[in-house]
Amino acid sequence: MRLKTRLTEKLRIKHPVLLAPMGVMAGGKLAAAVSDAGGLGIIGGGYGDADWLERQFAAAGNARVGCGFITWSMARDPTLLDQVLAKRPAALMLSFGEVEPHASRIKAQGVPLICQVQGMKYLREAVEAGADIIVAEGCEAGGHSGLRGLFTLVPEAADYLSKHSPDTVLVAAGGVGDGRGLAAALMLGADGVLVGTRLLASRESEAPEGFRQAIISADGDATVKSNSVDVVRKRYWPNPEFVVRVLNNSFVSKWHGCERDLEAAIDVEHERFWTAFAAGDADHSGVLMGEVSGIIHDAPPAAQIVEDMVAQACRLLGSHSGCVVR
Amino acid sequence: MRLKTRLTEKLRIKHPVLLAPMGVMAGGKLAAAVSDAGGLGIIGGGYGDADWLERQFAAAGNARVGCGFITWSMARDPTLLDQVLAKRPAALMLSFGEVEPHASRIKAQGVPLICQVQGMKYLREAVEAGADIIVAEGCEAGGHSGLRGLFTLVPEAADYLSKHSPDTVLVAAGGVGDGRGLAAALMLGADGVLVGTRLLASRESEAPEGFRQAIISADGDATVKSNSVDVVRKRYWPNPEFVVRVLNNSFVSKWHGCERDLEAAIDVEHERFWTAFAAGDADHSGVLMGEVSGIIHDAPPAAQIVEDMVAQACRLLGSHSGCVVR
Repeated sequence: MRLKTRLTEKLRIKHPVLLAPMGVMAGGKLAAAVSDAGGLGIIGGGYGDADWLERQFAAAGNARVGCGFITWSMARDPTLLDQVLAKRPAALMLSFGEVEPHASRIKAQGVPLICQVQGMKYLREAVEAGADIIVAEGCEAGGHSGLRGLFTLVPEAADYLSKHSPDTVLVAAGGVGDGRGLAAALMLGADGVLVGTRLLASRESEAPEGFRQAIISADGDATVKSNSVDVVRKRYWPNPEFVVRVLNNSFVSKWHGCERDLEAAIDVEHERFWTAFAAGDADHSGVLMGEVSGIIHDAPPAAQIVEDMVAQACRLLGSHSGCVVR
Repeated sequence: MRLKTRLTEKLRIKHPVLLAPMGVMAGGKLAAAVSDAGGLGIIGGGYGDADWLERQFAAAGNARVGCGFITWSMARDPTLLDQVLAKRPAALMLSFGEVEPHASRIKAQGVPLICQVQGMKYLREAVEAGADIIVAEGCEAGGHSGLRGLFTLVPEAADYLSKHSPDTVLVAAGGVGDGRGLAAALMLGADGVLVGTRLLASRESEAPEGFRQAIISADGDATVKSNSVDVVRKRYWPNPEFVVRVLNNSFVSKWHGCERDLEAAIDVEHERFWTAFAAGDADHSGVLMGEVSGIIHDAPPAAQIVEDMVAQACRLLGSHSGCVVR
């Protein structure tokens, strides 16, 4: 059994499961694995690094993959968008920031435009810009997110799209880790899911082994939204609504709420942080991960994650459900 | 069609829908209406007022209803618990605070114990205390809640209960406003839902008309977690993790983040707040409401809300679903 939804139709994929374009962590290998499994892999363009992107598209080989950017960061060097568009990506995803003029350029190339939104205000902007696919992201997500919870954002977004842009497809993100989450997302009105943390803890992600183990060990209470990790990385996010969710590790528990002190010690701490990061030290760097870590207990191949998720959702929805096909 | 779950069995009710015991707003009339419709009405004991409780149980008449308390507040005067237990409530619900010694007293009377939890730490305590029913509350909820989103808390709680206390029943709360939410909650592993804001905007709630209209008008982005409303009411919550979600109205946008200034002007502002509250002024008092307001567009009788919710969930789940019965 598998699931046939407006998302699988729109992107011509087998399963309604997208890889979240986690900066640096969602590389070409993971993206290719998700696409090969029947979902769509989206390379995490993140803050934008031309050489890294080149290597990741190469690593994806012949797999049909997309790419995602942190919009406000990519906007500082839009040649990154040209670079990716030249590769004829399966989709281009924009998150966090003004979508224009990038949206128009993406659409002009005939590339499906995915816009991630964190509330109704952003949803309206994305629809206005002509997004083909909306990703409604809840604050349970790992990494940056807004203020809204997924459980209420999805049905409200579905109602809005149904009324104002019925052909736009809706995807739920932030908190989806298994078939229960996929089935629930469909019940709430989504056409599929975008999966981050669950695929970060997979064999093919670029996460250091220590990060994978941190996700496996943590329960869902173990994360926190904290500016400390952006401060130490000198990532100056222009919109304070978007705060990063990370493991509440030794680094975060030391500096969370004390970001001014961290600024004062930035030279030493910046160096120390990146050294720990490079060493895969999950306790003294920053592990971007979502609350869904509480239901993650292993790090199997990405294909197995996708297949198990879909199979479980099909079982829960039942073979007579409208979207379950044989 | 209707839904048969472990919750309907445990409480001997027709529909797996509980009324959230919203302090002051969930009175006897609303509780009776929900119970009469086949769910279970739970009177909102809130901060505890013996006379008010007496009137609400009288207003509920012969309907079989429960009662809920803000635990840390009731603990200052446990005779309130005696008062309610003497009425042989259908269930007693504790939220926010140490459950013992109250839990033991409730169980000793043979009254079903419902514990609301906002994270895994609280879940473990509630299971330890012998809760018959766990309400997993997401931070989307109106009024006070913790840090976890509903979408991840429910499956993680379900896994924990399945392993450590398989007879304990799980209910999802915070963000459930229609049959999509009920169906999604069941997919995530819950046995039913507890509904606040959707039933606050009903004909039988104690909400002033201005509050109902505020819920109807607001989209889901229109609420905010803000201590300002607790400060002005002189509600001194002992655990800073629990912050109240309210409409981001004129009062809140003036004082949110400026709670120290509010303290300095407390005599005037306290009086002004309660005067506005008494007048049903949704803009200059505090309207405790959840993000689910974004899918609420009317204030029908509670029975219609319950029946529509169940009917929509049955349609979504499909007649071949395991929990749908004719």
